[in-house]
Amino acid sequence: MLDEFSLIRRYFHHAQSDSVVLGPGDDAALLTPPAGQQLVMTQDTSLAGRHFPEDMPAADIGYRCLAVNLSDLAAMGAEPLWFLLSLTLPDVDEPWLEAFSAGLFALADASGISLVGGDVTRGPLSVSIQATGAVPPGQALRRDGARAGDRILVGGVPGEAGEGLNQWQAGRRDGPAVARLCRPAPQLVLGRALRGQAHAAIDISDGLLADLVHVLKASGDLGACLHEPALMTLLAKSPALSALAPAMRLSRALQAGDDYLLLFTQAARAPVPAGSHVIGEIQSHPGLRMRGDDGTEHPLTASGWQHF
Amino acid sequence: MLDEFSLIRRYFHHAQSDSVVLGPGDDAALLTPPAGQQLVMTQDTSLAGRHFPEDMPAADIGYRCLAVNLSDLAAMGAEPLWFLLSLTLPDVDEPWLEAFSAGLFALADASGISLVGGDVTRGPLSVSIQATGAVPPGQALRRDGARAGDRILVGGVPGEAGEGLNQWQAGRRDGPAVARLCRPAPQLVLGRALRGQAHAAIDISDGLLADLVHVLKASGDLGACLHEPALMTLLAKSPALSALAPAMRLSRALQAGDDYLLLFTQAARAPVPAGSHVIGEIQSHPGLRMRGDDGTEHPLTASGWQHF
Repeated sequence: MLDEFSLIRRYFHHAQSDSVVLGPGDDAALLTPPAGQQLVMTQDTSLAGRHFPEDMPAADIGYRCLAVNLSDLAAMGAEPLWFLLSLTLPDVDEPWLEAFSAGLFALADASGISLVGGDVTRGPLSVSIQATGAVPPGQALRRDGARAGDRILVGGVPGEAGEGLNQWQAGRRDGPAVARLCRPAPQLVLGRALRGQAHAAIDISDGLLADLVHVLKASGDLGACLHEPALMTLLAKSPALSALAPAMRLSRALQAGDDYLLLFTQAARAPVPAGSHVIGEIQSHPGLRMRGDDGTEHPLTASGWQHF
Repeated sequence: MLDEFSLIRRYFHHAQSDSVVLGPGDDAALLTPPAGQQLVMTQDTSLAGRHFPEDMPAADIGYRCLAVNLSDLAAMGAEPLWFLLSLTLPDVDEPWLEAFSAGLFALADASGISLVGGDVTRGPLSVSIQATGAVPPGQALRRDGARAGDRILVGGVPGEAGEGLNQWQAGRRDGPAVARLCRPAPQLVLGRALRGQAHAAIDISDGLLADLVHVLKASGDLGACLHEPALMTLLAKSPALSALAPAMRLSRALQAGDDYLLLFTQAARAPVPAGSHVIGEIQSHPGLRMRGDDGTEHPLTASGWQHF
């Protein structure tokens, strides 16, 4: 049986960036922050059976738990630097650990983030990751800068991960929707491109409507109108949603979380970033509305969207 | 029933230092690091029933879970800056949360560290804290600098928290030993004083002998000899250990973890910091030994210390 120290050495020692003076192995990591930058810090815990299915492959769990933290860095426009990992395991299962760390480091290496510390304890499977990034002073994307008249954009097709969870619960283990659930792609490149461009940004973790409401409230109780034809056209192009009726696609897109796409607002005249889509506009009067084909606006609620 | 956002607003919004540009409430915190300093980062997860008794008062749980992280910063000689908290709760128990946050912020305020983010999830009680501090470049205390001929010192009386756990398990809920278990005091002031003075430092979390072995191994497979008369004299002064026979005191002091005292080495001629005690010396030949009253040395093992 591996002890904690041997386990960490075997599965979690990995190449690190030059900013890491001292990585795992001392009481704490010792790091050189980039000069003149602000730091961005987030921490998210993922519990088996609550945040991901218990039987998700270990490599996907490793990938996904880091991805949700990187997505928070992306939503701030930050460059990833370092992360710490607290891993709670029911037992020491070496093939599981090998797959978990392979999935974790696949994304860490692709994102340029270094594992610098953490711990391993015995208990119900849980993954707590704290990630730090850097951003030039005053350039971080925030939730509280949306303005009436802004366009609302999304960095991809919302609802695919939610449909993936639905398919997973029905027994499916492959296909484009399940892939979006298991390996969400944090939009770090888009986040950095939005510095000085987006007025407000958030990543979609609670669901498009719920996260849009976070932006509206933080920005001074504004409102929003989504464009149904634009959303329907966007959703119709998705292979992951192709099996669903149009009304169900819209429901998934608005309510399902787990997409980890960026939702952002920018001035109406600003260019649309590649891969992003305009889906609505910020309005000065509070509340959520949907504008249909015929141009009329219907009210929406964040918690219970009703098709009309 | 409080949702996650209301719960965080009610119990975890608290005054923050000027370095916090944006605290809890956005996708991530936004922070200004102190110019020209290195950062020190640690993360520790505490599970109910494993790292602290399930029935420990909530205020003590809050205090203790932050203390173990601050102790890691102390062991690096760092000044505390910020922490993030991932709290996993079986249910929303408002009196429990109020007491937990009161204990947490009592120590946070006393230590000058600001809560800047984290999350709350539903599950078996678990507290994962990531703490960051700062240290002037090159001045961090490390495990790997011990030298043959160094004195070994400890920043207080080891074994008191271990005796506290023993008393807790026997049903006792007060007294000096139980207080040391519930509210360990991270030695931040001592850690900063040891910059440029100690050759190696660690905090005692696994037990004095086990943590001493971490220092010896990191410093190039050195050895150590502890001085039994010095230890016995030190332990005899402790009210927390007074009920124990001398041999049992020594066993607790060498093997019990949870003390969160600093264990450090320094040159033989260096002054002994106030409140610290010389308990042995670093030797060039590997292994652990104990020197008795009569000057003879007996072997010790880190995992199973035997009285002789």
